[in-house]
Amino acid sequence: MLSKNQIKLITSLQQKKQRLANQLFIAEGIKVVQELLKSNFELVHIYTTQNDFEEVSVEFKTTVCEGDLKKITALTTPNTCLAVFKIQIHKEIIETGVILALDSIRDPGNLGTILRLCDWFGISQLVCSKETVDIYNPKVIQATMGSIARVNVNYVDLSPFIIQTKLPVYGTFMNGENIYKTTLPQEGIIIMGNEANGISPEIEKLIKNRLAIPRFGKLQQTESLNVATATAIILSEFRRPS
Amino acid sequence: MLSKNQIKLITSLQQKKQRLANQLFIAEGIKVVQELLKSNFELVHIYTTQNDFEEVSVEFKTTVCEGDLKKITALTTPNTCLAVFKIQIHKEIIETGVILALDSIRDPGNLGTILRLCDWFGISQLVCSKETVDIYNPKVIQATMGSIARVNVNYVDLSPFIIQTKLPVYGTFMNGENIYKTTLPQEGIIIMGNEANGISPEIEKLIKNRLAIPRFGKLQQTESLNVATATAIILSEFRRPS
Repeated sequence: MLSKNQIKLITSLQQKKQRLANQLFIAEGIKVVQELLKSNFELVHIYTTQNDFEEVSVEFKTTVCEGDLKKITALTTPNTCLAVFKIQIHKEIIETGVILALDSIRDPGNLGTILRLCDWFGISQLVCSKETVDIYNPKVIQATMGSIARVNVNYVDLSPFIIQTKLPVYGTFMNGENIYKTTLPQEGIIIMGNEANGISPEIEKLIKNRLAIPRFGKLQQTESLNVATATAIILSEFRRPS
Repeated sequence: MLSKNQIKLITSLQQKKQRLANQLFIAEGIKVVQELLKSNFELVHIYTTQNDFEEVSVEFKTTVCEGDLKKITALTTPNTCLAVFKIQIHKEIIETGVILALDSIRDPGNLGTILRLCDWFGISQLVCSKETVDIYNPKVIQATMGSIARVNVNYVDLSPFIIQTKLPVYGTFMNGENIYKTTLPQEGIIIMGNEANGISPEIEKLIKNRLAIPRFGKLQQTESLNVATATAIILSEFRRPS
């Protein structure tokens, strides 16, 4: 049985303010929790409905009934486990190689999927504007599928960060240069914009290299790609041998 | 004011069975509804909280209060409008060019995003296995951003369809050939598999051309890409000039 205080603390972690105050976040589902256990995130406790996680010592886990899991889950349909981890101490930005920077990504699913893409394409640094959704949001953690353990994420004021960098800065725009015909470097910052508004005018001014993903539809009516799928295509182009 | 019967009919369209019985589906949000109005989908009625859709004659629209919209929406946070459209009469499969085929895609957001990708890359035919989520599911319609108007979608038994085709058949697997080093044709069927299990063994047997998207992470621990982002990379490779 979970105590009222435990339930209160765990559910409070669905809010950014409470995550910051307690320096804790939640992760749900065996796959995600296992990936975090393998990483250097520090486990606080696992709540599971199964007899699993044999590698975790008993003081760090509690077997709960489905009803209790339902009380603490952030999901509509709870998984079989929920774990509480400590938020990692701030790490410095690794300003080398290809860096992805996000200008106000608001959808947790998009941020999680983008982090998973960074992991796949060996992008070790993700820089988020302060308006971007919190990386420790339960829905983001869910969508990362554990990739959060392998990508360094920092929240910054994006303008000063871009102004100070010595790396070339790239962004995608409808009227940019055809990405398939552009020679792309081994180092650089790629900026992806907000779901509805794209890259903000303030940031756009700072971008010297304007790229475009060509459309192939006959009617050419599709307004835009989803930001996660556009990121997939851009990272693939930066990494593929030319 | 909406009548109880109107509310009952509209909310029932959140279920596949009722969509089929009534041959109707719902679309929400100005952008999506506008795209469908421009297409050959037949409008039944628009319910809006604004004085918009001037191009639509009064008998086809009703101004409702936010409370009424909340009663009929399929979204957690309702938009400003909801429209009911007729389901289109079955069209034959266009078996030419590049065709995308889905083997049991279950997530509505993924299906919607994939349809949007088809539209962007000029893929005019999407073939779905019967286990794939319904294209008229409100969450799919939402994620397509109107692309449903420009891509032909058919639900079939996937095995017989693949057996009968004269087009080359492609699928992605961890041990496939590096997609960046493969010469890809102008015509062919690309099969994308289920979110958790990938391509089913029954379908895998029928695939002669096995492709892989290389991973670039140092640790190489990322298990897989999200199916929509993998589709983005594959369609980009098929369409880009080599």
